[in-house]
Amino acid sequence: MVNPIDPTAVAFLMAENRRMPMHVGGLQLFRKPEGAGRSYATELYHQMRDVETIAPLFLKHPKRSIRTGGQLVWVEDEQFDIEHHVRHSALPKPGRVRELLDLCSRLHGTRLAPERPLWEAHVIEGLRDGRIAMYTKIHHALVDGVSAMRLLQSVLSTDPDRRDMPAPWALRPRAVQDPPANADEVTTSALRTALGISAEAVGLPGAMVRTLRKSVRNETSALSLYAPRTILNQTITGSRRFAAQDWPIERMRAIGKATGTTINDVVLAMCSGAMRTYLSELDALPDSTLVSMVPVGLNAKQSQLASADGGNAVGSIMVKLGTDLDDPADRLSAVHTSMRDGKEALSSMTPVQILAMSALGQAPAILTPLLRMQGLVRPPYNLIISNVPGPRTTHYLNGAQLLGTYPLSIPIDGMALNITCTSYDGHMCFGLTGCRRTLPHLQRLLSHLDDELTALEKAAGV
Amino acid sequence: MVNPIDPTAVAFLMAENRRMPMHVGGLQLFRKPEGAGRSYATELYHQMRDVETIAPLFLKHPKRSIRTGGQLVWVEDEQFDIEHHVRHSALPKPGRVRELLDLCSRLHGTRLAPERPLWEAHVIEGLRDGRIAMYTKIHHALVDGVSAMRLLQSVLSTDPDRRDMPAPWALRPRAVQDPPANADEVTTSALRTALGISAEAVGLPGAMVRTLRKSVRNETSALSLYAPRTILNQTITGSRRFAAQDWPIERMRAIGKATGTTINDVVLAMCSGAMRTYLSELDALPDSTLVSMVPVGLNAKQSQLASADGGNAVGSIMVKLGTDLDDPADRLSAVHTSMRDGKEALSSMTPVQILAMSALGQAPAILTPLLRMQGLVRPPYNLIISNVPGPRTTHYLNGAQLLGTYPLSIPIDGMALNITCTSYDGHMCFGLTGCRRTLPHLQRLLSHLDDELTALEKAAGV
Repeated sequence: MVNPIDPTAVAFLMAENRRMPMHVGGLQLFRKPEGAGRSYATELYHQMRDVETIAPLFLKHPKRSIRTGGQLVWVEDEQFDIEHHVRHSALPKPGRVRELLDLCSRLHGTRLAPERPLWEAHVIEGLRDGRIAMYTKIHHALVDGVSAMRLLQSVLSTDPDRRDMPAPWALRPRAVQDPPANADEVTTSALRTALGISAEAVGLPGAMVRTLRKSVRNETSALSLYAPRTILNQTITGSRRFAAQDWPIERMRAIGKATGTTINDVVLAMCSGAMRTYLSELDALPDSTLVSMVPVGLNAKQSQLASADGGNAVGSIMVKLGTDLDDPADRLSAVHTSMRDGKEALSSMTPVQILAMSALGQAPAILTPLLRMQGLVRPPYNLIISNVPGPRTTHYLNGAQLLGTYPLSIPIDGMALNITCTSYDGHMCFGLTGCRRTLPHLQRLLSHLDDELTALEKAAGV
Repeated sequence: MVNPIDPTAVAFLMAENRRMPMHVGGLQLFRKPEGAGRSYATELYHQMRDVETIAPLFLKHPKRSIRTGGQLVWVEDEQFDIEHHVRHSALPKPGRVRELLDLCSRLHGTRLAPERPLWEAHVIEGLRDGRIAMYTKIHHALVDGVSAMRLLQSVLSTDPDRRDMPAPWALRPRAVQDPPANADEVTTSALRTALGISAEAVGLPGAMVRTLRKSVRNETSALSLYAPRTILNQTITGSRRFAAQDWPIERMRAIGKATGTTINDVVLAMCSGAMRTYLSELDALPDSTLVSMVPVGLNAKQSQLASADGGNAVGSIMVKLGTDLDDPADRLSAVHTSMRDGKEALSSMTPVQILAMSALGQAPAILTPLLRMQGLVRPPYNLIISNVPGPRTTHYLNGAQLLGTYPLSIPIDGMALNITCTSYDGHMCFGLTGCRRTLPHLQRLLSHLDDELTALEKAAGV
């Protein structure tokens, strides 16, 4: 099996280096099913490993072919070894979430070997509260395809009694898939949010590459924002730190209702306050506000700021986070205003302009070598914050309740931090992926986020 | 820092591919010091990780340099990340030796990323009996150097109260090193046996490469042995299985005394009987005997069959294992005769012949591409069995008693199994490294070895 690799996937393969692995990841936390025994994690691992036929997507790896003049092609791994890809791991004592995040940081910081299919999944036991974790990682060159999304979507069920769901990498007839309750539920299922969306947050659709050359010089108001230089915007290293936590969406909704803002505004304000505290502690807070790139669906309604409504058609808004403001309420207000202005600017742009701006925002790591634009444009923002709606109802993996799902994204040169949030079952799950060396003590952002949520509640009087 | 890579190291780097990672490994088992708390593994991990200055050997990685015309050179890793190299891992429940060997198999089957320094060390907790394990892996291109050996040798102490010994990869003044009780103790310290010796067992000294071209056609009696084709002698895959166990040397010594054979003869006879049972169960036992390559020190006394007496000056003897014989006593006798004949043949060879023969035996994976000898000579043996003397006294790592040390070696195409034994503190530690796909249920060899030792005792009347 030899197949050509599409240009977008090639771009992700070429852009990858030791400092910038181009895989996305997902961390999922599960509660064991009722009556599960001590060896439940082992059983789950065996379920994931003992797959009769692997889907082609999970069997192929890139190779430079002499026959095609040195072009990268996909070839099937003739010595595919499932035990290399599906692994059973355990956490050191005391088995706190901290040890889990350490392991995920380490796994996410290691490049996938290009001589093998570009994915890994780890069933992780040893959390002291008995929960089971699954960390999955897949190269951006693979996850872009519609077939990948379809495969990943159908592994969870809303039925707690459903068993014998196949592994995401198993080849299976369509009939095995869970019948979608409604179309929305399918496109936003949990695995998609964990894996696919963090890909989208840095993704560069092929169409963007093609149109960008024509339109890069059409400056837009959204691009001409001033973003201060910060420690976030440096050359990064290959060391990763992953931090994750969730909060009840109800708390954010209450703040939004009391202040006339959206849940997404509250999420951005939480990030703003947390970044302000974090940078202050490092004595690195710039005088002017941080600017965040926020991906939005191109056809998004005013009320729904999401990049998840199908395909790669995402635009981006440059949001002033108000990190220069001392008061939490002022920051929330600044974010709300900036989002509203951004959406208005976006609606006044032509589709080509939107595509070009989005491409600039989303993939400088790829565009820089591809189009030699370095110096032509300056980085228009300081960090990326994505908020992607996920399933609203409880989902199960063969009876194990999914408790939370946290995306791991791709930091790149000049963009050392990526915050991706996803909603699931009444909770907003934050996944923070950063370069450990560029951003010391990244995990502190979690308590800063918590503090900021409390401060916003207080400010809103809820 | 840019340094040329010596030709032998280049050979190991070039010969490496996905099917044949060219690193050696060592598994060490420790008992926690008296009074060690619950977090002892974490403390040990921190000791290993928090190293002030890393020795240059552990900082360099290979790179193709444009300035030197595409030659491979060593460059210092400018983004060296100790947390990538020194890791803290845990075993899934129930934490038996089986789970430990599974983890080591997985770690040993993964290639070191050439973009980073070529080593890893894992502090492993979770064994249910409370022991702590350490798996260390290092590329053969590094371990060949004398400086590597020196660094690795001095990390253990015979003094249980000695603390603050540096990590093997720490740069340290000579004065910090343990004063050698005697020279023998230094050259055979435990880390050397675990890591260095398994390297030697497949090693190809630079001198051999240089002399081989002249002498390859000087056939020797040792080379003209007939080795049957077996499942051991196929193209292999990158999947690894590691099995390890130890037995009291006293049991082997007793058999040797009763039968007029050496401890090494008994070790080989154990392997012979175990291989016979293993291959029979797979219905793959050849009619004629398996032939094993056994490395010996070039200056070895008649009584000491070791490759460990300094440097890379190792010869090899082709030993008929007697796997065609039904009786354990007959197999021991056949091994003894074959070893004696081999040593006599070796003593009658010229140094160049010995070097050439040794090189043929030791590194077909490297010689094949280097000298294009494929077809010129047929594989003269079926497997490699090395037996390397280690320290005779109890050693400690900062107070933790070393209980056993097991080498992980390098299976190659045509040689799917490598058995390396090392003695330590009254025990003979066996490390079996094989291709998991070529050799199913490799771990069964452990119980076969155990059965064979018992059978030999019975046959010898001890």
